Amino acid sequence: MKTSLKIVALSVAAVFMSLSSLSAEECLPCHREKTPAAVRQWESSAHFKAKVGCEKCHGTDHEKMKRGEARVDMKVCAPCHKKAFETHRQSRHGMGLHSGWGCTRNLEGRNQRECAFCHDKDSAEPLSQVQCARFLKQSADMGEVGCNYCHSVESNCASCHTNHNTDLKIVRDPASCAKCHMGPDHPQWEMWQTSLHGTLYGSLGQATGPTCQTCHMPQGTHDVSIGITMSSGGIAYPPEKGKPQREKMITICSQCHAPSFASRELNRGDAIQKQSLSIVKEAEKIILDLADHNLLDPMPENRPPHPLSGNKLVIDSQLLYEDTSHIERLLFKMKKYDYARTIKGTYHQNPAYAHWYGNAELKMDLVDIKAEASRLKKGSKGAPAADSPKTGGSTAEDALRVLQKKLERGAISEEEYAKEKQKVLEEFLKK
Amino acid sequence: MKTSLKIVALSVAAVFMSLSSLSAEECLPCHREKTPAAVRQWESSAHFKAKVGCEKCHGTDHEKMKRGEARVDMKVCAPCHKKAFETHRQSRHGMGLHSGWGCTRNLEGRNQRECAFCHDKDSAEPLSQVQCARFLKQSADMGEVGCNYCHSVESNCASCHTNHNTDLKIVRDPASCAKCHMGPDHPQWEMWQTSLHGTLYGSLGQATGPTCQTCHMPQGTHDVSIGITMSSGGIAYPPEKGKPQREKMITICSQCHAPSFASRELNRGDAIQKQSLSIVKEAEKIILDLADHNLLDPMPENRPPHPLSGNKLVIDSQLLYEDTSHIERLLFKMKKYDYARTIKGTYHQNPAYAHWYGNAELKMDLVDIKAEASRLKKGSKGAPAADSPKTGGSTAEDALRVLQKKLERGAISEEEYAKEKQKVLEEFLKK
Amino acid sequence: MKTSLKIVALSVAAVFMSLSSLSAEECLPCHREKTPAAVRQWESSAHFKAKVGCEKCHGTDHEKMKRGEARVDMKVCAPCHKKAFETHRQSRHGMGLHSGWGCTRNLEGRNQRECAFCHDKDSAEPLSQVQCARFLKQSADMGEVGCNYCHSVESNCASCHTNHNTDLKIVRDPASCAKCHMGPDHPQWEMWQTSLHGTLYGSLGQATGPTCQTCHMPQGTHDVSIGITMSSGGIAYPPEKGKPQREKMITICSQCHAPSFASRELNRGDAIQKQSLSIVKEAEKIILDLADHNLLDPMPENRPPHPLSGNKLVIDSQLLYEDTSHIERLLFKMKKYDYARTIKGTYHQNPAYAHWYGNAELKMDLVDIKAEASRLKKGSKGAPAADSPKTGGSTAEDALRVLQKKLERGAISEEEYAKEKQKVLEEFLKK
Repeated sequence: MKTSLKIVALSVAAVFMSLSSLSAEECLPCHREKTPAAVRQWESSAHFKAKVGCEKCHGTDHEKMKRGEARVDMKVCAPCHKKAFETHRQSRHGMGLHSGWGCTRNLEGRNQRECAFCHDKDSAEPLSQVQCARFLKQSADMGEVGCNYCHSVESNCASCHTNHNTDLKIVRDPASCAKCHMGPDHPQWEMWQTSLHGTLYGSLGQATGPTCQTCHMPQGTHDVSIGITMSSGGIAYPPEKGKPQREKMITICSQCHAPSFASRELNRGDAIQKQSLSIVKEAEKIILDLADHNLLDPMPENRPPHPLSGNKLVIDSQLLYEDTSHIERLLFKMKKYDYARTIKGTYHQNPAYAHWYGNAELKMDLVDIKAEASRLKKGSKGAPAADSPKTGGSTAEDALRVLQKKLERGAISEEEYAKEKQKVLEEFLKK
Repeated sequence: MKTSLKIVALSVAAVFMSLSSLSAEECLPCHREKTPAAVRQWESSAHFKAKVGCEKCHGTDHEKMKRGEARVDMKVCAPCHKKAFETHRQSRHGMGLHSGWGCTRNLEGRNQRECAFCHDKDSAEPLSQVQCARFLKQSADMGEVGCNYCHSVESNCASCHTNHNTDLKIVRDPASCAKCHMGPDHPQWEMWQTSLHGTLYGSLGQATGPTCQTCHMPQGTHDVSIGITMSSGGIAYPPEKGKPQREKMITICSQCHAPSFASRELNRGDAIQKQSLSIVKEAEKIILDLADHNLLDPMPENRPPHPLSGNKLVIDSQLLYEDTSHIERLLFKMKKYDYARTIKGTYHQNPAYAHWYGNAELKMDLVDIKAEASRLKKGSKGAPAADSPKTGGSTAEDALRVLQKKLERGAISEEEYAKEKQKVLEEFLKK
Repeated sequence: MKTSLKIVALSVAAVFMSLSSLSAEECLPCHREKTPAAVRQWESSAHFKAKVGCEKCHGTDHEKMKRGEARVDMKVCAPCHKKAFETHRQSRHGMGLHSGWGCTRNLEGRNQRECAFCHDKDSAEPLSQVQCARFLKQSADMGEVGCNYCHSVESNCASCHTNHNTDLKIVRDPASCAKCHMGPDHPQWEMWQTSLHGTLYGSLGQATGPTCQTCHMPQGTHDVSIGITMSSGGIAYPPEKGKPQREKMITICSQCHAPSFASRELNRGDAIQKQSLSIVKEAEKIILDLADHNLLDPMPENRPPHPLSGNKLVIDSQLLYEDTSHIERLLFKMKKYDYARTIKGTYHQNPAYAHWYGNAELKMDLVDIKAEASRLKKGSKGAPAADSPKTGGSTAEDALRVLQKKLERGAISEEEYAKEKQKVLEEFLKK
């Protein structure tokens, strides 16, 4: 009884508070003191000119605001900015599941079934394959600063637009993209800035020098994935998905260039993507082979479990940079840094990124991976040499174990396994 | 007698020379030819407008100038720029001993006893603990170009203000800080430039985008240490020293932000500093343990002596990057580069620096340090395994040597030493 | 007979085609559609104002243009821009053979005998020593994007000037140099930008802050090698060649600085160049010694042949970053990245590049090279220890093989060889 009464009382209070609605006039006297820049920036914004006051975005429940429960996320902006919202939602930026996070938790109106991709019903623990597991090993603090500053773009217009100053000059400046699209893993800003496109922009401004926005947000679309022909991990789309995108990009290039020129440049990117991927694959093969022979140091079973795959070897995009072996760490750099820089550097016409920061690093890391493989093989006297894995091991037992591992990871078929096993046994009986 | 006469003669000459004083009018005819930019810049400076001529800063003794003995250091500027001088001297910039150099030789009015911190009386040779030993291994040439260009800030206003052009536009531009605050060890400029603060500055200028100066030199103070809560090596101050500084910084942030927001952001930095330090400590422990077992390659006793600590292992801030082992070199990168970038990246709200250039590198270097430790342990057949140091060595003799080393470096107390030693001997007698 | 007729017919056709000449009026209706930016940029260019139409640069043979056979290279620009062309051709930019490529194929008017430096008559295969072999290992695609974007400067004005927009503002902006002069191997742009010169430019523009052009293209000369005293690989010119260049550079510096100041700064660069080279030489010696003892992993004979030198060890400027050993890969980084950054950082007065990105990396890579050498020596039980090569090997046979290798690579004379050999044999007979 008492409890119900309390609830009634609280509800009445809540109604009252929402009735005592606030408008900018009421907010300003205090907020000029408490958050002066916010007020100043709002006053210089298009919102101010259009008489969009505080309450329009923040609501009127001051207690809720103070509890941090009145965040101005995308659903607040969407009703007025429909086209931007819709094109954003179609894009990689708008699709939480594919925006690098592997979690749609911030994505308003998400398909609830997507949660099941990663979680058991109502569980916050990851279940299986999600696109990025690296966050799961971060502290909550690093998660906020190092990850969520960027990976909240699916639901937060302020990722690009800043909060109170909605001056379009900000978001039309490539620097507004730089905040996230920089660094060792995807230095699009750096490579654009020192490309011909970027240097023309630097000298003569946007009219002559195309920006991120010119090519990736033509006519102001918020579908930033337009014209992109590969996944965020750099795997080319199948032709039926990639070809229409390529055509869109050539149309964009043709605002300035002859389509044949644009096509040739982009085709070069495709060729270099394939060549670069084959270098990565060569490295992956070396590591798989070492794992088959129990030669990784430490082996996955002797280190903290991977957040998604436990003590299995992980060399796909879930590859970690911690609690791993030196050689897998080198592969991480290769895939996440070198490979990305080579192909993005090529598509952005930046020779230093395509070659020195990309291709040369890919090849140097392959040298180091081979050197470490050689060390690991030499270090293990008893283990079979990794380059003659069939029956060249020290014992038939070793050879059979290697075959078993290859079967398990799908490198050989059941049939091949049976045949190879037979060979090992025959070899053994001969002795 | 003769000597006194000489002195009198010299004094008279000196008086004469200072009488034959020079003023700008006398300097310009020649110097328009010989140092045209200096004249041009002075003519466009506030000094020119205020009729501050050549002689005011350079004096009137032309011979002395030509001998390079009339340097315009801080004591020349201080009488006119009192407040700047005083606040500068309070700051980390102004305190030579703590500005990274470990030498106050350039610091006018320094406490002469400070010299004894590093030197025997009248000796230029270092004696013992100074803050930075790296310079001592540099050539004089690299010392000038690579070190003193920055590390003369305690006594040289021109470090920031340039020489003849005293246009405040120069020193209000964050680029004037970039000259020193950049690079792998403390890329504050790079991380600011690509943070939201820096990109707003890029788009809309200083009125909207806060600069280095906005937060670290509020109201034009030259006490750049205001609001800083840790040493230059990234060790948090004790609360009694740190808390008042934090409060000052929150006041600065509150020019734009709600104090609660500022506080939350800065607290995250504190948390990440602690987490990052624990990764560094894990690496240090691995190296200490290897050293206890004589497994560093080369051991400190087999390499050129450390300029301050001789052939003792040095892993504190005196850690060198040369004449050391590979694993200590990795620790150098961890402490000096990765750790600094993680925490400075966090406090400057730059996700790419906090995470990719910082945290990810910290963790990757830890992987490499563990791998190298494993190699070193495997490489030494006879030596005791470093992870079971108590009695697991190949002989009791080895185990006792390790205990002795731990005692010497203060890792165990005399009491613990005695107890552990007893255990080893008992174990030995059982066999 | 038939053939001659055909030739006549073709000639007539050619004459006809060139008669049907095109002028801008004829090009524009289509090209406003097909290459709008090109037209727009031309219309805003000095060429347009001077009534230099399409046909002036592209010719009038539309079919040829469409086949990509009417490239607007330097010989098209030279007749009008004589002085620029001539000074360019004198410079390192203009000398294909020395511009990093090792091939003069793009260089109009080249001495045909230069081809023989690299090729047998009429062969496209490399024959022997050219300046840069790295391209030969690249795919054609990477060759275009990663190499030729920059290394076509000898014959292509558009490398710097862009195509249709010939606005001098573009080429007077240091960013136009950045496109090529950036990156890990020669970050001149980065080091200038954050030097005092660059930051003054950033704050106050070209009048106060000297640019690349101010010092390297004084009075608009296109001889960018003016005042340079070393090869592109960082080897100091002999005094008879270097001294006159140095004097030219001091004259340039003296536009702003006192010659004595300029001279002191540049001399420091010379000293640091020598010191840095000795660190590189120390690393080279370690690697040569390992090779003498067959300790590189893999040895050159067990890896894909070097494009120019086959299975011989290459540690000069032809050193590769792929198909090599880990320790040679470290040397590549040392020579190509660290060494270059140290000396260029010094001459450009950038402490972070001179010291942290340069000198510190040089010394850290030397630590790593020594560590790898130690690993390789420990890994080989039977092989003679590399640091006692004379007779300390496991057998006299080993010692003789090492001597043989030293003789072959010219490290010892025939006489020294005979003497050392004698010693080995005497030692052997004693046993």
